Amino acid sequence: MNSRSQECVQALRYLSKEEAVAMETELLRDYRFGRQQLTEMLGHACATAIAKRQPTVLVVCGPDQNGCVGLACARHLRLFEYIPTVFTPKRSSDALHQDLMLQCERMDLPFLSYLPTEVQLINDAYNLVVDAVLGPETDLESVGEPFTGVLQTLRGLKAPIVSLDIPSGWDADESSSDGISPALLVSLMTPKRCALSFPGSHFLAGRFLPYDIQRKYELNLPKFSGTDCVVQL
Amino acid sequence: MNSRSQECVQALRYLSKEEAVAMETELLRDYRFGRQQLTEMLGHACATAIAKRQPTVLVVCGPDQNGCVGLACARHLRLFEYIPTVFTPKRSSDALHQDLMLQCERMDLPFLSYLPTEVQLINDAYNLVVDAVLGPETDLESVGEPFTGVLQTLRGLKAPIVSLDIPSGWDADESSSDGISPALLVSLMTPKRCALSFPGSHFLAGRFLPYDIQRKYELNLPKFSGTDCVVQL
Repeated sequence: MNSRSQECVQALRYLSKEEAVAMETELLRDYRFGRQQLTEMLGHACATAIAKRQPTVLVVCGPDQNGCVGLACARHLRLFEYIPTVFTPKRSSDALHQDLMLQCERMDLPFLSYLPTEVQLINDAYNLVVDAVLGPETDLESVGEPFTGVLQTLRGLKAPIVSLDIPSGWDADESSSDGISPALLVSLMTPKRCALSFPGSHFLAGRFLPYDIQRKYELNLPKFSGTDCVVQL
Repeated sequence: MNSRSQECVQALRYLSKEEAVAMETELLRDYRFGRQQLTEMLGHACATAIAKRQPTVLVVCGPDQNGCVGLACARHLRLFEYIPTVFTPKRSSDALHQDLMLQCERMDLPFLSYLPTEVQLINDAYNLVVDAVLGPETDLESVGEPFTGVLQTLRGLKAPIVSLDIPSGWDADESSSDGISPALLVSLMTPKRCALSFPGSHFLAGRFLPYDIQRKYELNLPKFSGTDCVVQL
């Protein structure tokens, strides 16, 4: 009886880029979630996923939404008593990004002024590098410097990488063999298609999707335990 | 050695109303925290504190900030697989409150259209009542209906009450013997003076205060365990 009911469990869905964008639009527009609110929940959940591993961490944050989650994640890691270092390759014009930066600065998080191109320096200084550079919404055709340089450095690292939502530089719809290769992927809200055959550790962060949204997009999310905001897939 | 270092631990501070207001102003103005962001973290932490007790819950939410936290708390309780019921005695003109209401509605949380004055009905239907009606900032001189009626009903309940931040109707600066008498108090960010000799269970919710703020207000917060956002005092 028990094994039969397990067979009937629907498989977790991996969303296309288009579906992911549509779902987020709906959360903001129809459910009146705020970006601040979503970013905070996601950043907190990412930090929780990472904290299970207890490393010294470099958090590389891009100028858009993925970078915002990275900044919130870095701040929560600090509150979990790590000392994360932050690097932001490009100044952002987004007010939420600027507020999250200031919160990190006033929490005394150290910021790198540049990313060493000598990867050995990074490997020696950090047990883990968080990749919050580019997200699913990034138009990869238009990615130039400083991001191409940063991605090249990340590709050369020996220190394990944790990517938030998708590995930076990947298309959300397909996996990549020549892009960066994270040891751990933290999908935000739902996994994206590019993660379908992801070989590393895979966490899902964020436990707040309305049930109607879960049904509409047929997400078949796994069960979160107790009050956990993170689940390993 | 160990016992000596424990003796040196400074006592947790209980803030006056004035200090609590000053600290929150500073968080919003100088640290650029957003109300949405703070409310979400606090609501989540309150739900976590409550979820340790596993009851069926009625959440009574006022029209101001305390009620906002109550609404976020109710939504997270739903996500933790309880079925909380919400009652809001008064419509709010606050946009954040309205957004949080809509999020609860679209998460299919049941709303009561009125609070039964017959307390036995409430005692029978709920294992726990969350009091998120009035907060420390409330001017008690100007509290009239519908709140006086709601507080009177809460005072007559046998079902245990959980108050968020301070028991509604209490002055933040002094404990009250004739007001409502919660079984459990969840202080938000820091405990307020009225909780100094609180006889029930006491939790502290919210783990995000910048260290400079903690030092400035000499908070001497207790240690949170692991990635917990709640600690029992």
